[in-house]
Amino acid sequence: MKRVLFVNGPNLNLLGTREPEVYGRTTLAEIEAMVRRRAAELGCEIAWFQSNWEGAIVDYLQSEGPGATGIVLNPAALTHYSVALYDCLKALTVPTIEVHISNLHRRAESYRTTDVTAAAAVGVIQGLGPRGYLMAMEYLVDRDE
Amino acid sequence: MKRVLFVNGPNLNLLGTREPEVYGRTTLAEIEAMVRRRAAELGCEIAWFQSNWEGAIVDYLQSEGPGATGIVLNPAALTHYSVALYDCLKALTVPTIEVHISNLHRRAESYRTTDVTAAAAVGVIQGLGPRGYLMAMEYLVDRDE
Amino acid sequence: MKRVLFVNGPNLNLLGTREPEVYGRTTLAEIEAMVRRRAAELGCEIAWFQSNWEGAIVDYLQSEGPGATGIVLNPAALTHYSVALYDCLKALTVPTIEVHISNLHRRAESYRTTDVTAAAAVGVIQGLGPRGYLMAMEYLVDRDE
Amino acid sequence: MKRVLFVNGPNLNLLGTREPEVYGRTTLAEIEAMVRRRAAELGCEIAWFQSNWEGAIVDYLQSEGPGATGIVLNPAALTHYSVALYDCLKALTVPTIEVHISNLHRRAESYRTTDVTAAAAVGVIQGLGPRGYLMAMEYLVDRDE
Amino acid sequence: MKRVLFVNGPNLNLLGTREPEVYGRTTLAEIEAMVRRRAAELGCEIAWFQSNWEGAIVDYLQSEGPGATGIVLNPAALTHYSVALYDCLKALTVPTIEVHISNLHRRAESYRTTDVTAAAAVGVIQGLGPRGYLMAMEYLVDRDE
Amino acid sequence: MKRVLFVNGPNLNLLGTREPEVYGRTTLAEIEAMVRRRAAELGCEIAWFQSNWEGAIVDYLQSEGPGATGIVLNPAALTHYSVALYDCLKALTVPTIEVHISNLHRRAESYRTTDVTAAAAVGVIQGLGPRGYLMAMEYLVDRDE
Amino acid sequence: MKRVLFVNGPNLNLLGTREPEVYGRTTLAEIEAMVRRRAAELGCEIAWFQSNWEGAIVDYLQSEGPGATGIVLNPAALTHYSVALYDCLKALTVPTIEVHISNLHRRAESYRTTDVTAAAAVGVIQGLGPRGYLMAMEYLVDRDE
Amino acid sequence: MKRVLFVNGPNLNLLGTREPEVYGRTTLAEIEAMVRRRAAELGCEIAWFQSNWEGAIVDYLQSEGPGATGIVLNPAALTHYSVALYDCLKALTVPTIEVHISNLHRRAESYRTTDVTAAAAVGVIQGLGPRGYLMAMEYLVDRDE
Amino acid sequence: MKRVLFVNGPNLNLLGTREPEVYGRTTLAEIEAMVRRRAAELGCEIAWFQSNWEGAIVDYLQSEGPGATGIVLNPAALTHYSVALYDCLKALTVPTIEVHISNLHRRAESYRTTDVTAAAAVGVIQGLGPRGYLMAMEYLVDRDE
Amino acid sequence: MKRVLFVNGPNLNLLGTREPEVYGRTTLAEIEAMVRRRAAELGCEIAWFQSNWEGAIVDYLQSEGPGATGIVLNPAALTHYSVALYDCLKALTVPTIEVHISNLHRRAESYRTTDVTAAAAVGVIQGLGPRGYLMAMEYLVDRDE
Amino acid sequence: MKRVLFVNGPNLNLLGTREPEVYGRTTLAEIEAMVRRRAAELGCEIAWFQSNWEGAIVDYLQSEGPGATGIVLNPAALTHYSVALYDCLKALTVPTIEVHISNLHRRAESYRTTDVTAAAAVGVIQGLGPRGYLMAMEYLVDRDE
Amino acid sequence: MKRVLFVNGPNLNLLGTREPEVYGRTTLAEIEAMVRRRAAELGCEIAWFQSNWEGAIVDYLQSEGPGATGIVLNPAALTHYSVALYDCLKALTVPTIEVHISNLHRRAESYRTTDVTAAAAVGVIQGLGPRGYLMAMEYLVDRDE
Repeated sequence: MKRVLFVNGPNLNLLGTREPEVYGRTTLAEIEAMVRRRAAELGCEIAWFQSNWEGAIVDYLQSEGPGATGIVLNPAALTHYSVALYDCLKALTVPTIEVHISNLHRRAESYRTTDVTAAAAVGVIQGLGPRGYLMAMEYLVDRDE
Repeated sequence: MKRVLFVNGPNLNLLGTREPEVYGRTTLAEIEAMVRRRAAELGCEIAWFQSNWEGAIVDYLQSEGPGATGIVLNPAALTHYSVALYDCLKALTVPTIEVHISNLHRRAESYRTTDVTAAAAVGVIQGLGPRGYLMAMEYLVDRDE
Repeated sequence: MKRVLFVNGPNLNLLGTREPEVYGRTTLAEIEAMVRRRAAELGCEIAWFQSNWEGAIVDYLQSEGPGATGIVLNPAALTHYSVALYDCLKALTVPTIEVHISNLHRRAESYRTTDVTAAAAVGVIQGLGPRGYLMAMEYLVDRDE
Repeated sequence: MKRVLFVNGPNLNLLGTREPEVYGRTTLAEIEAMVRRRAAELGCEIAWFQSNWEGAIVDYLQSEGPGATGIVLNPAALTHYSVALYDCLKALTVPTIEVHISNLHRRAESYRTTDVTAAAAVGVIQGLGPRGYLMAMEYLVDRDE
Repeated sequence: MKRVLFVNGPNLNLLGTREPEVYGRTTLAEIEAMVRRRAAELGCEIAWFQSNWEGAIVDYLQSEGPGATGIVLNPAALTHYSVALYDCLKALTVPTIEVHISNLHRRAESYRTTDVTAAAAVGVIQGLGPRGYLMAMEYLVDRDE
Repeated sequence: MKRVLFVNGPNLNLLGTREPEVYGRTTLAEIEAMVRRRAAELGCEIAWFQSNWEGAIVDYLQSEGPGATGIVLNPAALTHYSVALYDCLKALTVPTIEVHISNLHRRAESYRTTDVTAAAAVGVIQGLGPRGYLMAMEYLVDRDE
Repeated sequence: MKRVLFVNGPNLNLLGTREPEVYGRTTLAEIEAMVRRRAAELGCEIAWFQSNWEGAIVDYLQSEGPGATGIVLNPAALTHYSVALYDCLKALTVPTIEVHISNLHRRAESYRTTDVTAAAAVGVIQGLGPRGYLMAMEYLVDRDE
Repeated sequence: MKRVLFVNGPNLNLLGTREPEVYGRTTLAEIEAMVRRRAAELGCEIAWFQSNWEGAIVDYLQSEGPGATGIVLNPAALTHYSVALYDCLKALTVPTIEVHISNLHRRAESYRTTDVTAAAAVGVIQGLGPRGYLMAMEYLVDRDE
Repeated sequence: MKRVLFVNGPNLNLLGTREPEVYGRTTLAEIEAMVRRRAAELGCEIAWFQSNWEGAIVDYLQSEGPGATGIVLNPAALTHYSVALYDCLKALTVPTIEVHISNLHRRAESYRTTDVTAAAAVGVIQGLGPRGYLMAMEYLVDRDE
Repeated sequence: MKRVLFVNGPNLNLLGTREPEVYGRTTLAEIEAMVRRRAAELGCEIAWFQSNWEGAIVDYLQSEGPGATGIVLNPAALTHYSVALYDCLKALTVPTIEVHISNLHRRAESYRTTDVTAAAAVGVIQGLGPRGYLMAMEYLVDRDE
Repeated sequence: MKRVLFVNGPNLNLLGTREPEVYGRTTLAEIEAMVRRRAAELGCEIAWFQSNWEGAIVDYLQSEGPGATGIVLNPAALTHYSVALYDCLKALTVPTIEVHISNLHRRAESYRTTDVTAAAAVGVIQGLGPRGYLMAMEYLVDRDE
Repeated sequence: MKRVLFVNGPNLNLLGTREPEVYGRTTLAEIEAMVRRRAAELGCEIAWFQSNWEGAIVDYLQSEGPGATGIVLNPAALTHYSVALYDCLKALTVPTIEVHISNLHRRAESYRTTDVTAAAAVGVIQGLGPRGYLMAMEYLVDRDE
């Protein structure tokens, strides 16, 4: 059976209340529910993970990654500096889609435009809100066929 | 009836033969056919355009953009320097998704990492191959509901 | 008889509706009318041109420029990257005033502060709205005397 | 009752022995004691936290931050790269003062002059030694009145 | 009655003799005379000021600026580094036009292309010689109507 | 008797009316009054100075600095370019605290993040409003004991 | 029979009159005549093209390039920013020599030293005047043998 | 008895399978075995540690570092951004050798050439594969004599 | 009779006590005395000026410069940012030697290596202590013969 | 009789074995033989020189350059840093063509794109292999007529 | 028999007296003696070379390199700019270890952190004093087995 | 007896004919004669050296430097990149004055403004023509007393 990992970086557990004018009002639990509903339709198993700890995310990817169909990763703040996450994705051979809820190109802070993890991913979806999670899963499931 | 514009920048007419190790072997006509099939399923009208001329693309967007449900734009080389295209998207009020077939973050040439048009788009899908066109259309059609 | 060319770059045909909080609500046709009225008072012939195509603008300047009293040029987006336009102005020996409706120094996007065409002009008027066109024409007509 | 969180980043548990020519000879426990004495005078409750783990600090702020009167944060090394900490502070709505024992402007290493967290704080106190902690607390308590 | 301030920065008192191949042979007194003649025609009062002292210019603007119709400012060398002048213009609510006799985009020295004061002005006129002063005054007088 | 100098840079005399959304509505005279009240409580003499002239500030610091307990300096715009002020502080042996009413890290203009004077100070307090002046004085008075 | 394309970018139609101190007094028609004479000696067919339009050049290269022995390209201003031209050359498999009449390393304007198209060419000849066209053709004809 | 700490950063637990063309096929366990054999010959005690967590590494170094003869540290990804690790090494007074299995100077990614931790080490050995660990240990043991 | 102006920038009046490890223990008065003694030997008149005010220095140079044999200028802090001083020197036609007591190339602060005034001088003498003043005067007097 | 100098920089004596995938398999002796054959046809004398020593090359150019018809220079590694070679070429008045066997624009190492010597040459031929030497000689011989 | 070349760059002949606080008090002759003793134990022949001449080092490497087991290279100052040395190492196929006595990451001068030769070496040992030479030799001898 | 070394870098043997509009028409032999005459007056022995070889200059300084009263060094092109020369000067303990005939601050080429050797000198004299050599010698002789 297909299995897709959803991995969420720091502060995404605050979605819905965190700067809603940037990130919207949907909570992470609501996104998870959306994802689980769509996964059921697709006949796909999912695993859902969020952590504020870079190390926890690397550990999780190392232990759960092998054997997965694909990874949907929203690295959040780690996008901009976590070479450890980049290295981890390079070390695995599991296709990964990087997802961002907002469009980073519209962010004023200049460090927001640096993306150190994306080069280790198959591709990136950004700015399409929670739907980006669903699109990434659908892509990974289809790609595997 | 919903109507989505698909606008393709310079050299995309060579898709399938152009650096296939980077861009794959699917031709632009094949992508257009995929898009048309999916649009028929969605009950959505589409318009398809490709040009090697920045000016032609701006003219097209100005004349066809108003009234459209959304725009799927692959600016190709223009991504990296066409402020005219950026200004045009800002001037229109039509939601636009920028699509790239390959993942720009994996390109070695440094100017490939500059994206001047993306800040005028709702979001970006890159690296997911021709499927990115379909995903963008589906997003725009749903968003409109 | 004196003859001044007015040349307008990409997307200026959308003036009045395009980001009116930045560019104001006067349309390009209204500016043209203002210019024509003032030209009549000055006893000066004018030619008015707008294009979204860099190549069309260069062609126009090459064919209409020689013999003109002066050129009033609003390069719009081309300001920031069109070396071709810069080269064209250098090749002509017609005095040119670059005009911008808004004050580029107030723009947040960093590429907006690069002006590659201005060094080929006699001078620049920016931020004074449509009136900048009139001021440039008056300057060119007087300068010629 | 008012409640102020004191959050200390990596290696601050070594204060007093760590490069004392830069950071002085007062230990973190001594600073905590100073803070507690002054808090008692102010009738203010405090919580004291130190960790070498970015993730632990983000978790702590997320769980203890809401409802607090304010946060006194010495991010130490994290000042220079923790976008996760910046995002966390932005997500909370609790006023935060960033405190540094030494004056970063006097550091020779260039990366020491980058401060990614400060833009999410109300303000910064640096170079005033352990007293900066007291000043920040006093400010937060008064501000709340 | 309308009142326009003309404020000239360091070394402009040497106009006419100072690098005439760059700045021309018209003296500042001659420009002042031109301005006064045109102001009389416009029924406008003017005040004329030149100083080599940044502080004197800031003092002058603070005392004379409030109540003025507008300010014509040639900051000369201060253009490139005087944050104090920028702050002063921001603090006043009087419309200001920055004027430069020569076209800064043609200057070879790279620091000449930095303009820290322009972002606090309504707009900029450069390269049009002494006439720039008249054009700025005319604009300010008309704008006020 | 202890004696603290308060030195205020360009345009701070406009506090309260100058961009109040950034700097607040308290006037400099009100800050001075707050400082004087608190100084009286501390049994400390103060001297208060404001100037829009860099040279005047350097002269003042040279003549009044020696013998003072400490200096509270808000360099305002001079923060960003006055090497003369930096040199003056280095030449004196009087402890100085640099104070800014707003948090410079939140300013969008990039030159606002350069601070050339801070490296000559003991420390910096920024973003805490007028209270920063009191905190700096209290620190200097205590430090002297 | 061998066939070499000669493609000339913006403003090269003005050669001979355009800044002759930089580009010399030979017109483009004279260069074409030189090229045609030499091609006749070599028994080689040539096609000659000039346009001020980036899009026209890309179209031309796409339609005429396949099957050609080689391309002699003087991109003129497009050298410095046309990623579309670079992409087009990469997409074709026809050997291309980039030719510049003047030596770009002697140009004072810094953007003149950026060459985005050269990396898609076999090589570059610059500074040798119109003769560079002949040398490039001779090289391409010989290389093909 | 002498005691050397071996500390390994993120993803090094994947050695042998992770990008073997860059890092070789030796596993971390095999390196540890090599180290233990050589340590036995040298009569030296070793402690071996790997973690994907920056905080865990800092904690470990703080608790195990004091009293050790030396530290052999392969910071892996943390090399490039962990100021916390740098600070930790500076705070300890234990000689540290930084070891990298590959030669960072040969890496194409530009951020790979930034090494923020090395300045806190005695020296660096890179590109010599697993043997670098042994060489570092031998150096530390001898140095101590 | 020959006449040389000696012009000293901000904080040079503190020479001898100001950071003596950098600038030595000779006071400015002692340097002036040395200069006057040597000038008497050379049969040369001198004028001596020091100010902490950029504007005062520009005024002085404008009024005393014309007719002088030469200028010995130690701009001190103004070296690094005073475009006004640079402009003033360019406007005068009096040969100027820039003198620095210390060798700027040995200064750690990076802005110390920027010298905006030197390009307007005939030459520069730095690092040779007070003697640099004498050498500059001797050069100017001889040059005039 | 005409006389052309051929000067080859460091490591060119290894041509043919040195990184043949970049520089080809032709040896320098074979290139010299090609050049001598063609020179005989042209009735031109040649001198051939190679050295790994910058100083030897400068000495050679100084002694053999005057009187020569032209110089064909392949500076090899010296291209990127030898200001001495640049100065030497500027000091001579002999026309020089810089030749590179490979196309530097295709080199990944960024310092390979810096060319400090080319600005002292008439022009540059690169990427055309050994034939570049012949083309340069032919150009120089013709130019002289 | 195995044979290792030891090649030392400019000023290393002054070791022991040259800035001993940076480079230690061991002379190069003492290092050579250490190396020869250890080589005898390893049954390895060595060749020892030092020169202040870049060209001499390149010549030496070209003539002695082929056939050697390996090269231990301390490029000294040439580390930072000798592309010729880099090219020479690339052209040879002999494994090279770059050795530095001090740790370059601790050097304050920024150009000291640029290492142009290291990318052509197998690896680098720095900061371990003269012992680095022995470690490099041992590595090369073992590697060869 | 005092002894001053005069060391001249690449291409200075061409002085008088080399770009005389920059370097003047005095030959190096004439400068040497001036220096010898003045040295005789001062009762000082001199040694005169010129080479186009960096290595020769380093060798010369190493052998002749120790015991000399001082060194007058015109590094010419080596100023901009010879770390070897910088290291050599640092290794010697002989006071050195760097002399340049022209004023480097007036050079247009940006790499001309980098001076890597000056930080190892006592001071620098530039722009004062051949007289700079005499001034440096006089300074060194006096300094020694």
